[in-house]
Amino acid sequence: MRETTATAAITRGNVRGERARQKLLLAALDAFAARGFHGVSTRDIAQAAGMSPAAMYTHYKTKEALLFELSLRGHSEIQAIVASASSPTQAPLDQLKQVVRDYVSWHAREHITARVVQYEMNALLPEHHEHIASIRRDIERRVRTIVRRGIRGGCFNAQDPKITSLAILSLGVDVARWYQEDGKWTPDYIAETYTKLALQMVGCSANPDSV
Amino acid sequence: MRETTATAAITRGNVRGERARQKLLLAALDAFAARGFHGVSTRDIAQAAGMSPAAMYTHYKTKEALLFELSLRGHSEIQAIVASASSPTQAPLDQLKQVVRDYVSWHAREHITARVVQYEMNALLPEHHEHIASIRRDIERRVRTIVRRGIRGGCFNAQDPKITSLAILSLGVDVARWYQEDGKWTPDYIAETYTKLALQMVGCSANPDSV
Repeated sequence: MRETTATAAITRGNVRGERARQKLLLAALDAFAARGFHGVSTRDIAQAAGMSPAAMYTHYKTKEALLFELSLRGHSEIQAIVASASSPTQAPLDQLKQVVRDYVSWHAREHITARVVQYEMNALLPEHHEHIASIRRDIERRVRTIVRRGIRGGCFNAQDPKITSLAILSLGVDVARWYQEDGKWTPDYIAETYTKLALQMVGCSANPDSV
Repeated sequence: MRETTATAAITRGNVRGERARQKLLLAALDAFAARGFHGVSTRDIAQAAGMSPAAMYTHYKTKEALLFELSLRGHSEIQAIVASASSPTQAPLDQLKQVVRDYVSWHAREHITARVVQYEMNALLPEHHEHIASIRRDIERRVRTIVRRGIRGGCFNAQDPKITSLAILSLGVDVARWYQEDGKWTPDYIAETYTKLALQMVGCSANPDSV
């Protein structure tokens, strides 16, 4: 009985802790997006989350810790998008279509997160920066592998697969800069159009209109 | 004689003033690039330029005035690049090649200026924001006109000229985010490769290898 009560107490504590961390992450995200990492104090973030700086400190010791967790979550989502199209049984054309569609759509839908994780990397501590950089290298390598497989298979025709892969990802990243929620283009429309553009960028011989 | 001396004094004053303004603009540029507009105080900028806040005040009343002048200069350079390829006697293929090459090369070479002018726009006062936005609309309209002329002439084949033009400019903007001065790609190499990619994006029937 005592054990059950203790377990329940720990669970409630965990739930409360998780809720507090979520609140802090959301407050940090909005603050970093609006004013940049260096334009925000830990006090600003605690206040926006309805907490005291001391209460915040039990969850995150610094605002850099918040930025690192946001960066890690954002990059992990992007990595999952790219990894889910990395099966060697899938044709490179289908892989590229899936990656570009989901990657571009994510950068439109999650444009606030995307801006923070893509533009504030230099504010991370060196060890955190390296951790995120290794995820980015994995993302780039996976897309490069798709482009190279497509070239070997004769479907794609790109002179420099490395810069072409980077350009395709780069095009997706910049959607987060200009995307407007009240704009005339939906994330789906942008994703579809960009998929066709990416196929043209790799010199895809398939008719892009049939995408 | 008195008039000559007075003129000379005014000239010397102008030169000194121009030098002070240049120093302040450079200090503001570096500071905004490193810490973002909101992460920098006017005092930081004055100090980096070797001036007192009071001396800075005689040249720029606020740090927003510095951001506006940097934005205006940066956007005017981009506008000049695009305008110089807007002659109706030039073939759309040559216009697009020239615009993309010079636009991409500028965003690599001037990556620090480019990041500040492209990412800090929301920190401008409404009237300054509108002034810059009108230059951006002109830039986008000129590139769209090239793409539309190419489609009418049968050389290009883009389903949605508006989003395709935006994507071409967007691809160039994002170079400023990832470009590294000690990287293996020179601004010229990136500009050349991106010109070929842009021609593929507009479904250019000319062989991109001959660019």
